[in-house]
Amino acid sequence: MEMECDEKVRVGKRMSLWMKGLFAKLVEIGNETKALWKDDPRRVIHALKLGLTLTIVSLLYYYRPLYDNFGVSAMWAVMTVVVVFEFSVGATVGKGLNRAFATLFAGGLGAGAHHLAALSGRVGQPIITSIFVFLIACTLTFMRFFPSIKAKYDYGMMISILSFSFVSISGLRDDEIFLLLQKRVSTIFLGVCVCLIISISISPFWAGQDLHNRIALNIEYLALFFEGYGSEYFKTLQDREANKDENFSQSYKSILKSSGIEDTLYNFARWEPGHGCFQFRHPWKQYLKIGALTYQCAFRVDALHRNLSSNFQLSQEIRAEIQEPCMEMSMESGKTLRKLVSSIREMNQPTQAEIHIHNSKAAAKKLKASLKSSRMWENCDLLTLIPAATIGSLLIDVVDCTEKIAEAVQELASLAHFKSAKPGVVSLVKSEAAVQSGKEKVQPNIGLPFVTIPISTG
Amino acid sequence: MEMECDEKVRVGKRMSLWMKGLFAKLVEIGNETKALWKDDPRRVIHALKLGLTLTIVSLLYYYRPLYDNFGVSAMWAVMTVVVVFEFSVGATVGKGLNRAFATLFAGGLGAGAHHLAALSGRVGQPIITSIFVFLIACTLTFMRFFPSIKAKYDYGMMISILSFSFVSISGLRDDEIFLLLQKRVSTIFLGVCVCLIISISISPFWAGQDLHNRIALNIEYLALFFEGYGSEYFKTLQDREANKDENFSQSYKSILKSSGIEDTLYNFARWEPGHGCFQFRHPWKQYLKIGALTYQCAFRVDALHRNLSSNFQLSQEIRAEIQEPCMEMSMESGKTLRKLVSSIREMNQPTQAEIHIHNSKAAAKKLKASLKSSRMWENCDLLTLIPAATIGSLLIDVVDCTEKIAEAVQELASLAHFKSAKPGVVSLVKSEAAVQSGKEKVQPNIGLPFVTIPISTG
Repeated sequence: MEMECDEKVRVGKRMSLWMKGLFAKLVEIGNETKALWKDDPRRVIHALKLGLTLTIVSLLYYYRPLYDNFGVSAMWAVMTVVVVFEFSVGATVGKGLNRAFATLFAGGLGAGAHHLAALSGRVGQPIITSIFVFLIACTLTFMRFFPSIKAKYDYGMMISILSFSFVSISGLRDDEIFLLLQKRVSTIFLGVCVCLIISISISPFWAGQDLHNRIALNIEYLALFFEGYGSEYFKTLQDREANKDENFSQSYKSILKSSGIEDTLYNFARWEPGHGCFQFRHPWKQYLKIGALTYQCAFRVDALHRNLSSNFQLSQEIRAEIQEPCMEMSMESGKTLRKLVSSIREMNQPTQAEIHIHNSKAAAKKLKASLKSSRMWENCDLLTLIPAATIGSLLIDVVDCTEKIAEAVQELASLAHFKSAKPGVVSLVKSEAAVQSGKEKVQPNIGLPFVTIPISTG
Repeated sequence: MEMECDEKVRVGKRMSLWMKGLFAKLVEIGNETKALWKDDPRRVIHALKLGLTLTIVSLLYYYRPLYDNFGVSAMWAVMTVVVVFEFSVGATVGKGLNRAFATLFAGGLGAGAHHLAALSGRVGQPIITSIFVFLIACTLTFMRFFPSIKAKYDYGMMISILSFSFVSISGLRDDEIFLLLQKRVSTIFLGVCVCLIISISISPFWAGQDLHNRIALNIEYLALFFEGYGSEYFKTLQDREANKDENFSQSYKSILKSSGIEDTLYNFARWEPGHGCFQFRHPWKQYLKIGALTYQCAFRVDALHRNLSSNFQLSQEIRAEIQEPCMEMSMESGKTLRKLVSSIREMNQPTQAEIHIHNSKAAAKKLKASLKSSRMWENCDLLTLIPAATIGSLLIDVVDCTEKIAEAVQELASLAHFKSAKPGVVSLVKSEAAVQSGKEKVQPNIGLPFVTIPISTG
């Protein structure tokens, strides 16, 4: 009796432990779901859209006239929705068109192959068909390795192998094959059409818009860093410890982490029709160029950040000498990038950035002059000078990087016909002319050897 | 008559132009094919393997007893092959198991849903089924966004939605549904099995082996750079122009370009059974850690390389002072990495690397002392000193990076139970002890502020 009681207690304990574990797991999943949702609420909308599309297409099965027409083939439409409906419009269009046209062409080819094989009699047919299937499968599989095909038509190649095998092997009579092919192609087209309509008409997510936003955001992360860097760097060590501002110095890392995403978005954006401010043949490729430059700039930012987190203190003399130009270079680079961001976001010509590029170049010139003057390093240890020189050279590099980004954005602006800037704003040509003629002429390369790319006035 | 002749000539010219264009295009495609083949001959073998598998499975259609058993459902096996057969064994296993088990479970669930819906009568059934389909599709689609699910079960989720819809909508009687489900599951299992057998038995391509080789190759690229860097850097400018050795300095770039590939290979490798020297639960994750460290080291290499390509000349005094320790640091880091590569390739304990780490640290200490001594920078321009200091600090950083890579490889060696090294070789503990006790004790951090990570003896 007592033992039974013990047993019950033990089972009860185990049950309660198990329930607690389950509850903790559920809470964890709940939190993760909430985080995913908050991070990008479009995920939930996408899930609802797919559910809706699938439900609509499944009605084909219930609606008598349609079922009578398509029969069991209506299932192909359901499958098409599950396979084709992707997050962005571009991905859906790409997969949908690939699936539809690959089915049409490869299915037709399969029907032809079947007809040819049938001519060789009952014994020859399986052999001939097998040879055809083998050859087509090998060729198309190898073709999937071509980079240009992989980027745009990978799915189409797979569906081609599938459709060719499906039709050529099916072993039906010729007229039945054409009926099968017709049903398959029409249900797949139907599925693709429903996907495209829902994807575009209900809260569409454009890969092109995402690419556009992402590039702007990445530049903004850099701007954020440079705006905060100067003042953070020249804080005293105590100040820095006291008010640790990790925010400005962390966001740039996401640029380094996600360099492949832009390529993916680009591949999807190419499939998208015109939408919002983007025309059909928007110069998406230019975004990749800007992205690559941003990535290179983020390398420099990483080096600057590593300097920031090392514990060291500038001597008073050096600080007095370099603080002003360094802070100005950082701040003006930040402002340049900030202007570029708003130019991209509002799709304006980036003329406002020019004045800040000019200023940052002037500051770079000033810093180089300081580094050259012997006054600064007469009374101090080389080891205390090197960090200042390193920061200086990195910032000079950054000024150059920033200018290149500005040029790439300018190129984008002219390729995509961005609106011209409001009157009254300093124009690109004017500010360049000022640099060329005025006292502030920046020398091409004073001789810092680790500034690989000369800072020219052009 | 003449006009007709003119017309003929024009058509002939156009034809010949067209033919020339076609021929040029064909030659181009031929060259690209050859390049793809030469770059990795396994691509051709993969294509042939897929063709063979597809042909074998298509025989199901021709072999009477099998066809009588499976009927038209045999087509599912063909489709499975096309969709599941991937380049590496890991990818094929992952997709195959996802497809097979997702079909089994979601199909079963769909049958249950169908049974429940059927209870509510002819009018209620479509409504209830639609609600089920909508809910399942939404839930599973959202679940695909969870990173842990996306990495391993993304395809399974998609197939689950597909199978659930397929079975629940199909509108058949209960007993027919179970027959359908049984046929579908068994043909898909059959397809997956054939894929796995061919993938593993004929010239298998293991993602794990690829990951292992790739990590070793990346470290070798770094070793190649450091082995060449020292002597290249201290060449006179004329010498450097004359014998430009681009080989050693270019290969590291492929590390920076392809950082996502390791993650993909890792996700595949986790699916693979034991093969060759790798057991089932080989510590694949450790390769990602080594890969990340290699990537960070490649950043430094990039900075060193940019210095190399800038045109400048070290003054004679500075050269005399820093050449020896810099060359030694570079060379010893190269040797360390070279030993690590052979340790990974031969799956030995990396004890031989320790002595070179010790040497490179000693050289780093020597360089720091040089930079600290005032003798060196009494008579020269700061601008000529900075490059030397930059190189020095980068190389000190590299020594630290190399040590971290060595530690990570050591960790891999113990996790994966690599063979212990041959006797007679300096052991890890011994060499560490020498550093700790002897004159050569390396100070933790002499104060170069841009060497973020202190070089400790630990």
